[in-house]
Amino acid sequence: MTRAAVMGAGSWGTAFAKVLAEAGTETTIWARRPEVALALDTEHQNPFYLPGVQLPPVRATDDHRVALDGADLVVLAVPSQSLRANLDRWKGDIGADATLLSLCKGIETGTLLRMSQVIAEVTGAEPGRIAVLSGPNLAHEIVQRQPAATVIACSDAERAGAAQRAIATGYFRPYTNSDVIGAEIGGACKNVIAIACGIASGMGLGDNSVASLITRGLAEIMRLGVALGAQPVTLAGLAGVGDLVATCTSPLSRNRSFGHVLGAGGSMQVAQEATNGQVAEGVKSCTSVRALAAAHQVEMPLTDAVHRVCHEGLSVNEAVGSLLGRRIKPE
Amino acid sequence: MTRAAVMGAGSWGTAFAKVLAEAGTETTIWARRPEVALALDTEHQNPFYLPGVQLPPVRATDDHRVALDGADLVVLAVPSQSLRANLDRWKGDIGADATLLSLCKGIETGTLLRMSQVIAEVTGAEPGRIAVLSGPNLAHEIVQRQPAATVIACSDAERAGAAQRAIATGYFRPYTNSDVIGAEIGGACKNVIAIACGIASGMGLGDNSVASLITRGLAEIMRLGVALGAQPVTLAGLAGVGDLVATCTSPLSRNRSFGHVLGAGGSMQVAQEATNGQVAEGVKSCTSVRALAAAHQVEMPLTDAVHRVCHEGLSVNEAVGSLLGRRIKPE
Repeated sequence: MTRAAVMGAGSWGTAFAKVLAEAGTETTIWARRPEVALALDTEHQNPFYLPGVQLPPVRATDDHRVALDGADLVVLAVPSQSLRANLDRWKGDIGADATLLSLCKGIETGTLLRMSQVIAEVTGAEPGRIAVLSGPNLAHEIVQRQPAATVIACSDAERAGAAQRAIATGYFRPYTNSDVIGAEIGGACKNVIAIACGIASGMGLGDNSVASLITRGLAEIMRLGVALGAQPVTLAGLAGVGDLVATCTSPLSRNRSFGHVLGAGGSMQVAQEATNGQVAEGVKSCTSVRALAAAHQVEMPLTDAVHRVCHEGLSVNEAVGSLLGRRIKPE
Repeated sequence: MTRAAVMGAGSWGTAFAKVLAEAGTETTIWARRPEVALALDTEHQNPFYLPGVQLPPVRATDDHRVALDGADLVVLAVPSQSLRANLDRWKGDIGADATLLSLCKGIETGTLLRMSQVIAEVTGAEPGRIAVLSGPNLAHEIVQRQPAATVIACSDAERAGAAQRAIATGYFRPYTNSDVIGAEIGGACKNVIAIACGIASGMGLGDNSVASLITRGLAEIMRLGVALGAQPVTLAGLAGVGDLVATCTSPLSRNRSFGHVLGAGGSMQVAQEATNGQVAEGVKSCTSVRALAAAHQVEMPLTDAVHRVCHEGLSVNEAVGSLLGRRIKPE
């Protein structure tokens, strides 16, 4: 029997703890803020990130030692740029044989490492102990038990299978895959493309434009993935196309919503306020994904444009004009 | 200078004639119904399929000889299952060196031929004269001059380039490609997947489910395309992913809307009435695509489910349950 610790109580961490508990796995959530842990532990609710959602009776704590004690499945659900600092605090308390399952989507600023590489570097865990979960999984739909599928990528098929069994429920279907790089690159890049789609939509552009941006986004994600050793078929699957389409087309996506405000003429600050004060992950990842692409001589014009809008003052008009208004040429 | 005949005055044919005229190409539209031709010729409007849209001063006629006279670009924009009968009537009046540009999306029932194969068979034109246009091109957005991109596929690069120049405008960007099979398979299959996405949405399922169906739809389209000789990169591009995403996610898509009514409990007849009495193309193509897949030993479970819902009385609950509720397994 699996005992899971979900480290992070944002909307996705909380929703994922609900899935685990409903799959019959004994689950403890760690929340950084004591008031979040208290609400989760006593009322089984997260009024800060998932208001109105009733969870099954999970345990919650703001003490990472309590959460990690005896856990053989450690789910990492913190913002990607804070993963290293958190793991530094937690590493001594993680079980020596625990599986480390990353829900984090991003590339670390500065080091340009994928999340599984950060985990390996900080904890010293072998690659086979580290798994990545990614797919079209909008948290607000998962908590309503809407059917969804996802990918668990791990080089160790047995561990992937154990994690799969720990989270499979009637409405949440995990598929296993050995391509960790593909699953991580899909997840890290899609938030950036979703900001671009939000910008287009906020400027009043329609579904043809958004579909074109998704297609061009997929092409640049595939170029980067292949350069890093990912399998194209992973990026054509749930962790690539699936996650990209859900994030880029759903009004529930925070990154798309953030871009939408920018496209409608709002400032970065207004966009941040419109997304509950949470910074959309893509705002940070556009810079690190761009740097990673540059290091591998991969062109990512869409990611570059989002970086320049978010961090260099490029106007949304210029950005979208340059993306959709290029001269005619072969595909 | 190019002279174009657009053969067919449905919403896409009419919108495409507008693009041609705005690109500076002399354009005549042929409409089957005299009242459509009259409205287009005298008022430059199509109140039947694009009400409220003002076209530039194009010529229109219900006499195919008038339209085809002197045309060196013949645009075929009729429903796919009526292409053969129309070409039979027109073939003697098509210029011997005219480029035949197909906007038709489907597989012919019975023969299981792609549209370019039907054109070659009926007119005797060499492959280099036959081109296919496909991409994320919702007609209602194109007529509003929303930016959109598309693919012109033709084995003869010079002809593809000439067609490209004849339709390129500031808002409509054609890219050339030599993969006719890929462009046609993407276009023929996406309407079927859009019906499936509409069914899911009509049943109240959310964006995670729709994104999963799009992903699985892309996988089965790629399997079929590769079996027929298409390039995977075409299906990952505008004529594949791009068109698929636009058709599956936009409320403007007729096939998605048709499926939505079915998913919400409506009958086939109610669904047809809800889409202005026009039958969604996917209702016919699901059967021919399924037969084509069977002839090449390709599994297309989504297409099969749509066929069984539309033609064999399978309930939408059973169909979606079997697609989203399978047992857990490797991806």
